[in-house]
Amino acid sequence: MAKDYGEVELFGVGGSPFARRVQIALELKGVQYTYFEEDLRNKSDLLIKYNPIHKKVPVLVHNGRPLAESLVILEYIDETWENHHPILPQQPYDRALARFWSRFIDDKCMPAISKAAFTADKEERDKGTEESLESLQILENVLKHKFFGGETTIGIVDIAAGFIAFWLPAIEEAVGLKLLTNEKFPKLYKWGEDYTNHPVVKKNLPQRDRVVGFFKARYASITASK
Amino acid sequence: MAKDYGEVELFGVGGSPFARRVQIALELKGVQYTYFEEDLRNKSDLLIKYNPIHKKVPVLVHNGRPLAESLVILEYIDETWENHHPILPQQPYDRALARFWSRFIDDKCMPAISKAAFTADKEERDKGTEESLESLQILENVLKHKFFGGETTIGIVDIAAGFIAFWLPAIEEAVGLKLLTNEKFPKLYKWGEDYTNHPVVKKNLPQRDRVVGFFKARYASITASK
Repeated sequence: MAKDYGEVELFGVGGSPFARRVQIALELKGVQYTYFEEDLRNKSDLLIKYNPIHKKVPVLVHNGRPLAESLVILEYIDETWENHHPILPQQPYDRALARFWSRFIDDKCMPAISKAAFTADKEERDKGTEESLESLQILENVLKHKFFGGETTIGIVDIAAGFIAFWLPAIEEAVGLKLLTNEKFPKLYKWGEDYTNHPVVKKNLPQRDRVVGFFKARYASITASK
Repeated sequence: MAKDYGEVELFGVGGSPFARRVQIALELKGVQYTYFEEDLRNKSDLLIKYNPIHKKVPVLVHNGRPLAESLVILEYIDETWENHHPILPQQPYDRALARFWSRFIDDKCMPAISKAAFTADKEERDKGTEESLESLQILENVLKHKFFGGETTIGIVDIAAGFIAFWLPAIEEAVGLKLLTNEKFPKLYKWGEDYTNHPVVKKNLPQRDRVVGFFKARYASITASK
C-alpha cells in the first residue's frame, strides 16, 4: 500500500491551463486529492486566504499548507511523491534545462501567443505573431524525442507546454489564426497530438468547445473596445 | 582536497544584479571559476553561442555545457556542489516557498521598482511606487530571521533579493526616490545592511558610484525622451 501523505486539496478553474498542469502531475503520480472549482469573478475566501499574494489558481494545499504558482507546485509534487513517475530528470544539468524550458514557455511563448491573438493594435498583433513563430521554432528545435521528457516520459516541460498542445489550437480556431501547423512545425505538431492523447492528459483537459467559446468572447471584447 | 568538478566559466557584466547572484553563489560554495566580463553593446560570439535564446548574462558554462537564467543557475549550483553551504532548504515545502519568493522578487518587485523609477509617465510612475511599496511590505512580513534563508544562512531568496539590498538604494539616490526606509520597513532595511555586509556578498558587489552613475544616465535618457 502507498505511504500515506495526508490530505491534498487543489483549487483550480476548469479552463485554466495552469490548474490543469497540477491535476495532470497529481494524477501521473497517482496522488489522491480533492478538487475545488473556483469562480474567478467571485473568488472564495479560502482561495484569498491560501494565495493572498497573487489571488490566483492553482493553489495546492497539502496537509493545510498552501502553495501557489504552477511550476513551483509541480516541483513540490515531484519532490514529495518521489517514487512514482519522475517529472523532473535526475541529473542536475538536465533538471536545469527542464526548468529553463518550462520558464521559457511561461515567459516567452504564452505572452507572445496572447499578444498575437488578443491585441487590438494590428502592429502589436503582427509582432506577437512573429514572436510566437520564433518561440515555436525554438521548441521545435529542442524537441528530440516523442516527449520533451523523453521517448516514453511526460516531464515538466511537456506539462508546462500543454498550453501549446491544447489551448493554442483552441485560440487559433476562435480568432482565425494559424501558428502551430504540421507544415511549419512537424515535430511539435505531432507532439501536441501525442500529448493530448496520453490517457492521463486526455482525462484532464477541459471541453474543447467551451474553451473555444471562452476565447471567442475574449476576442470579441477586445475587437469591440478598439 | 575538494572533489574536482572540472571547468567553470561565468559570463557576466559587473553591474548586473543577475550576474552577481551567480558569483555570490559560486563563492559561498567555494567553487573556482573563470569570469568573463561582457560588453552588452558588443556581445561576444561566445555569449551568443552559449545563450542563443535570450543573449543575456549571466551564463554559466560547466565543462562546456552552458546554462542561462540566474535562478536556474543558482539551483544547478546548489545541486552540483551540494556538500557546502546549501542555497535551498532541505524540505520540499520550504524549497517550494524559497522558489516562490525568488520568483516573486523577479516577477513582481523588480518590475515594480523599475516602473517607479524609470517611467516617463507620472501616473505610471506613481502606480509603480505603490506596487513597489506593496511588494516590499510583503517581503517585510515574510522575513522571520536575520536572513530569508535563516538566522545564519544566506539562501536563494537572499541572493535573489540582493537587488533590493544594493541596487534599490542606488536607484533611490540616482532618481530621488524613497522606497526602502528604516521607518517603513525596519526588518527589510536591517536585512539589507546585514546582507551587503556579509563578506562574500560585499566582495562581489559593484562600485556603488558607478551603479548610481548608470542609473542617473538611464533616468536622464527617460526624462529627456518625455
